[in-house]
Amino acid sequence: MKTAVLYSGGKDSSLVGVMLKRLGLDVEMFTANFGVYDSYVPAKKSAASLGFKHNVLKMDYEVLDKTCEMIMNDGFPNDGIKYIHAQTVERLAEDYDIIADGTRRDDRTPKLNINQIKSLEDRKQVQYINLDSFGHKSIRLISENLFEISKEKSNRDTSSDFEVEIRELIDEKGGNSLDIFPEHYQTRVIGYK
Amino acid sequence: MKTAVLYSGGKDSSLVGVMLKRLGLDVEMFTANFGVYDSYVPAKKSAASLGFKHNVLKMDYEVLDKTCEMIMNDGFPNDGIKYIHAQTVERLAEDYDIIADGTRRDDRTPKLNINQIKSLEDRKQVQYINLDSFGHKSIRLISENLFEISKEKSNRDTSSDFEVEIRELIDEKGGNSLDIFPEHYQTRVIGYK
Repeated sequence: MKTAVLYSGGKDSSLVGVMLKRLGLDVEMFTANFGVYDSYVPAKKSAASLGFKHNVLKMDYEVLDKTCEMIMNDGFPNDGIKYIHAQTVERLAEDYDIIADGTRRDDRTPKLNINQIKSLEDRKQVQYINLDSFGHKSIRLISENLFEISKEKSNRDTSSDFEVEIRELIDEKGGNSLDIFPEHYQTRVIGYK
Repeated sequence: MKTAVLYSGGKDSSLVGVMLKRLGLDVEMFTANFGVYDSYVPAKKSAASLGFKHNVLKMDYEVLDKTCEMIMNDGFPNDGIKYIHAQTVERLAEDYDIIADGTRRDDRTPKLNINQIKSLEDRKQVQYINLDSFGHKSIRLISENLFEISKEKSNRDTSSDFEVEIRELIDEKGGNSLDIFPEHYQTRVIGYK
């Protein structure tokens, strides 16, 4: 059965995709894009390296705009990232009956809590799956066994996280995205071991 | 890496075992036994039908005894089942570094909540995995695609649930286990599709 996985190219969303494929579901990967920068390219490469069909999930610019306003007002990204993730999952749920993302048991942001999951499943008549089965140690163990992973300084051409287009738009708006998202290293799945 | 799955032969614990095996872990199945009845036999057959090594996890009689006292005092099984499950998971955590069970996102009893999971992982230095990634509809969909499943009237020779030895001991103690566990149908995994 067709299963749409929200995909960034990182180890978490790669793992949920591989897990569901190996359990017999017909998995395709989806990376959100808001029309500001083609930040889905690294995720597309990662999906191809794992043998998955990849799709760009076209999202409304307004969602990114509201996200950036929230983050610039707050001075930190948590609530904005939570909002953009939730909106993207809702969008995916409009077109597919089984949807998944790579959020983990230990994640705080972005993450749907149990009440949000039940509401989503009821309102949209979907099944939602994530990585709540696992803690971060198990995710690391399993994904390091399964995947070749690259580690690079995060920039707009090495990452497909929401962060990339958020940064672009914050800087366009005259903000300084480096104050909000400090420089960090980015891991990306580049194939099976 | 060796992974010990608490196993009843049902679709949930079968699914978590197959999921972890297909993600590269070295899975063995474990069914608790308290010395009152050889209730692990159906689970042993189910494990063999899926190609897993099966072990009997010898548990203290006192845990079963306390469980039965709780259930007979309460008049319903919830807290007793919660207790016996938690004790069994603790026991498994003494010998293995990665442990798992088939509890699901929608389960209420038996189930470890997030605080109990964190406490268990910290105290015993283990990784604990369950089926919290999935709702009951997804579990049914995936397991019906993967497994041949038999459905029989539940009795002491068709089930390896905790219920079997609990019933035996409640009846030995002069209680009436049928008042507490009404007759029901039992599903058991008997192979891959």
